[in-house]
Amino acid sequence: MAAPKLGEFERIARYLAPLAAPGGLELLDDVALIDGPPGEQYVLKTDAIVEGVHFLPKDPADQVAQKLLRVNLSDLAGKGAAPVGYLLTTALPRSRNENWLAAFSRGLARDQAEFGIGLLGGDSVATKGPVTLSVAAIGRVRTGTAVLRRGAQPGDLVFVSGTLGDGALGLMALRGKLPRLKTAARRYLADRYRLPRPRLALGQRLVGTAHAMMDISDGLVADLGHICAVSNVAAVIEAEKLPLSPAARAAITFNPKLLLAALAAGDDYELLFTAAPEAATKLAAVGMELGVAVTAIGRVLAGTGVRVRDAKGAPIRVDSGGYRHF
Amino acid sequence: MAAPKLGEFERIARYLAPLAAPGGLELLDDVALIDGPPGEQYVLKTDAIVEGVHFLPKDPADQVAQKLLRVNLSDLAGKGAAPVGYLLTTALPRSRNENWLAAFSRGLARDQAEFGIGLLGGDSVATKGPVTLSVAAIGRVRTGTAVLRRGAQPGDLVFVSGTLGDGALGLMALRGKLPRLKTAARRYLADRYRLPRPRLALGQRLVGTAHAMMDISDGLVADLGHICAVSNVAAVIEAEKLPLSPAARAAITFNPKLLLAALAAGDDYELLFTAAPEAATKLAAVGMELGVAVTAIGRVLAGTGVRVRDAKGAPIRVDSGGYRHF
Repeated sequence: MAAPKLGEFERIARYLAPLAAPGGLELLDDVALIDGPPGEQYVLKTDAIVEGVHFLPKDPADQVAQKLLRVNLSDLAGKGAAPVGYLLTTALPRSRNENWLAAFSRGLARDQAEFGIGLLGGDSVATKGPVTLSVAAIGRVRTGTAVLRRGAQPGDLVFVSGTLGDGALGLMALRGKLPRLKTAARRYLADRYRLPRPRLALGQRLVGTAHAMMDISDGLVADLGHICAVSNVAAVIEAEKLPLSPAARAAITFNPKLLLAALAAGDDYELLFTAAPEAATKLAAVGMELGVAVTAIGRVLAGTGVRVRDAKGAPIRVDSGGYRHF
Repeated sequence: MAAPKLGEFERIARYLAPLAAPGGLELLDDVALIDGPPGEQYVLKTDAIVEGVHFLPKDPADQVAQKLLRVNLSDLAGKGAAPVGYLLTTALPRSRNENWLAAFSRGLARDQAEFGIGLLGGDSVATKGPVTLSVAAIGRVRTGTAVLRRGAQPGDLVFVSGTLGDGALGLMALRGKLPRLKTAARRYLADRYRLPRPRLALGQRLVGTAHAMMDISDGLVADLGHICAVSNVAAVIEAEKLPLSPAARAAITFNPKLLLAALAAGDDYELLFTAAPEAATKLAAVGMELGVAVTAIGRVLAGTGVRVRDAKGAPIRVDSGGYRHF
C-alpha cells in the first residue's frame, strides 16, 4: 500500500521540485508555510487517498472519512502545528449512494468535533474511476517554530511515537493474511489501519525540542531517509528497539519477516523526530503525560543514508519495494 | 461535462453544508476566508479535474496542467483576489510515463510564470482509475473586500466577462461534433476549452463595485442560480444579449439549440457579477482598458429563481441537465 506512494513521490518530486515557490518551504518538506496574523504562520498540507490503494472498497464510509482527515491532521502534527480547518475534494463514482455519503459525512462530523476543526470549502466531481478523496489541511504555529525535516544533527537520537507496523499488519489482517492471529489481535490491527491517531498534542509539545520531525506515512526507513537527505546526515536504527504492539509482536513471532511492516510500511501515522540525547528524559515524561509512548530507536550520524541493525549489530536490508510483496 | 459536476455539487452539498466551519464562509460560497497578515485575508479554494470528465485522455499534458491551475485561479478571480500560490494533488495511473509528467510540469511552470504564483506543496498518489488532479489555490484580498455570492440586490444589472459557450462548444469540436464549422473556428473553440483565461485583473478591479460575483464553471444559469439563492433574489437573462464569439455564433447559426452551450454549459470560466446600473459606464471602460468585454445580460429582481427570455420576451426553458444530451 505504501510502496506505490513512495515510488510515486520520487517519480513526481523530480519534476515538481523545481516549481516550488521561493517564499514557501521547499517541496521536499511537503508542507507550506504562509504568514498569518501577527506572530503566527499557517501550515498547509494536502494528502489524498484512493480506494483500492489507501482504503478498501468495503471499508465503512465514516471510517474512510476519518482516515482522510486524520492522515492530514497527522501531517500537521508532524510540524508541531495546531489544526484550524480543511478543504475537501471528493471524486465519487455514481455508484456511491446517499447512504455512503451520509455515513461519510457522519465520519467527518465526528472527527471535526474530536479535533476542533471545521470544513472551509471544497469541490465535488464525478469520476468513472475509484473514489478519490483529497484534503488540504490548514494548521497554525507561532512564527518560526514549525518543526521541519531539515534540522536533524549528528549526535541526535531518533524517536518515534506509539507503535510501528500496526497499520500495515491491519491491512493484511483485513485481507485475511494473518489467519493464525487471535481475533482480538486482528481487530486491534484492523482498527489501527482504519483509524490512525494523529499525534497533535504530542507534536505541539515537541516544538522547541525536536530538531527535525515528520509523520510516518511512507514507512519508517523511507521517511527517516527523507529527514536525513534534507538534513545532510545519516541515521542508524536498532531494530530491537522498535516499539511494537502486542498484536504486532504476535504477528512477527509467527512470521519474522513481518518485522518489515514496522520498518518499511506506511499507514502508521506516528511521529518520527530527532532530538538531543539530553532531551530523552523530558520526552519520556511528556509521552507519559499524554499517554503516548515515545521511544528512542536509533541515532543520527554524519554521512548519508539510513541503516538498520539487528540485536547483534548485523545489518538488516530493507528493500523499500519489499513491502509490496508481503 | 459540466452537468455531472452540477449534480454532484447538489448531491454533496446537502451532506457537507452542515459541516462548514462557523469561522469560514458558508460552504455554498465555495471559498474560505482566513485571516492573513494585518489588513489581509487569504482566500482558499479547491477544484479538481478528472480525465474523461473535465479533460480528454489525449489532451496535451501541458495544457491539462494549465487548465487545472486556471480553473482554480478563476475561482480566485471570482472573489476579486490576487493569487499567491497553490497546493497540488495528483492521482496518476502508472501508464502516465515520464514524458507525460515532464510536459505536465512544463505547463505548470509556464502558468506559474504567467500568473506570478508558486507551488507550495502537494501529494502524489497512484490510482488504477483515471488521472485525477486537484489544486488548492491561495489568494489574498484586503480584509473584508472579497466579493461574495450573497450580495446581489434587486435593481442590479447582471454582467459577464468575455464570451460564453466557447468552452462547451470547444469540447464538442474536439469530439468531432461540429463538422460544419470552419477549421479556424473549431480551433478557436478548442483552445478556449483547453485554456481558460482566469480574469484575475478584472476581478480585482471589480472589488468595491460588484455586489456579488463568482466565476462561471457550472454554467451561466446554474451559477446565477447560486448567486440568487444565497442573495435571496431572482434574475432574468436576456438571451440575445449573451456575448458570443464569432465561432460560437457560427455554431449556433448551424444549430440554434447550441445556444444552450452559452446558457447552461460550464467550462467558460468567465466572471459573473451583479452591480448597480450606474456602474455600467465605468465597467465598460474597465473592460476596454483590460481588453476583456464586460456585458450586461440581465437584471436582478425581487423573488426567486433565474429566468431566460428570448428577443421577443418569450421564456427559454433551460433544463440544467439538458446540456448532457447535446
